[in-house]
Amino acid sequence: MSSENGSQLPFAWLEPRGPKWTAGAPKRVHDNPWFAVDDFDAVAPTGSPARYFLHDHKAVATGCLPLYPDGTVVLVGQWRFPFGTYSWEMPEGGALPPEHPLDGCQRELAEETGLQASEWREVVRLQLSNSSSNEFAVCYLATGLSPVRADTEDHTEDLAIVRVPFAEVLAAIAQGHIQDAMTVATALRVHHMAVTGALDPLLAEAVLS
Amino acid sequence: MSSENGSQLPFAWLEPRGPKWTAGAPKRVHDNPWFAVDDFDAVAPTGSPARYFLHDHKAVATGCLPLYPDGTVVLVGQWRFPFGTYSWEMPEGGALPPEHPLDGCQRELAEETGLQASEWREVVRLQLSNSSSNEFAVCYLATGLSPVRADTEDHTEDLAIVRVPFAEVLAAIAQGHIQDAMTVATALRVHHMAVTGALDPLLAEAVLS
Repeated sequence: MSSENGSQLPFAWLEPRGPKWTAGAPKRVHDNPWFAVDDFDAVAPTGSPARYFLHDHKAVATGCLPLYPDGTVVLVGQWRFPFGTYSWEMPEGGALPPEHPLDGCQRELAEETGLQASEWREVVRLQLSNSSSNEFAVCYLATGLSPVRADTEDHTEDLAIVRVPFAEVLAAIAQGHIQDAMTVATALRVHHMAVTGALDPLLAEAVLS
Repeated sequence: MSSENGSQLPFAWLEPRGPKWTAGAPKRVHDNPWFAVDDFDAVAPTGSPARYFLHDHKAVATGCLPLYPDGTVVLVGQWRFPFGTYSWEMPEGGALPPEHPLDGCQRELAEETGLQASEWREVVRLQLSNSSSNEFAVCYLATGLSPVRADTEDHTEDLAIVRVPFAEVLAAIAQGHIQDAMTVATALRVHHMAVTGALDPLLAEAVLS
């Protein structure tokens, strides 16, 4: 999935500048069910040769902030293997093409929290680590929440679920207790939307209270 | 670098819950100067066996938003190889331990923009992709900007530099034209700080104008 560069740019300074990278065919030097590593002999925009190792992700990352009209949100907690730390996050998962990111996100919301949402709004797109990885994330605000039965479960996930005030989530982010990039960016973007009139006024009031 | 989980938690719900992952010694299945891939036979918190492939990053990612008193910020533009798209971002780089993230960030700011800052404030910490990678980012707000001579340069970087109103950066993020995760999270956090009284009042006014 590509970024939206080049289409209907709101500011002239956003225009791309200068030559692109060029690269030959990659050599796949590692492969597993979730990601691969490709080794490229590339030429940098400066004209210098550069060996590039690309972390090639197979799924699009998705996540949603489930928000109730009273300004509370649902987070899931789990131990994250790569850091060995406990992490409170919005419900997240991966959509393996051709699954649409929204379909994947709705599936993960049901699996992880037993919830469905009647309204979905894409609020932020992220290149998670764009110097070495093509992992892309599409993040949503999910409202109109109600219970749903999930058909599948992940046998390696042991998730805790909390419903807490959005203001506490923002405070936890500000103090460094929530660090998951998708959750941090989405929560701060929803706050920005509330402040700038991009949310329904009643919902904005609940979010900012 | 670990997260700050477990220390002085402001809300009881942030407490870690349930058993951790366990894992034996990894087998390194790929290695390059920037990252490696380790293959673990692990046991999930549920008790299920799980094979885990960890994307092990060697540097800590750093970046700063250079902010002037008039509410303008400095961004750098470049083609990003993994996506093949042009990306406007705050100045970013890597700090290879034992270099401190702040030292690395100051070095990158000088190299990429020819600027130094007299005031540095850490504003957000990110686990960039914590289901498969241990890449950690420390992001700063840099103020009190002045020119400086940089001693080094990167022969694969061909950077454009702009100084633009912070409001335009927020608008570009909201419309999906800026997608770099560190830049998105840091800009939205600085907006949040301005709204919530965490910035000097004159600077907040400039940021929000």
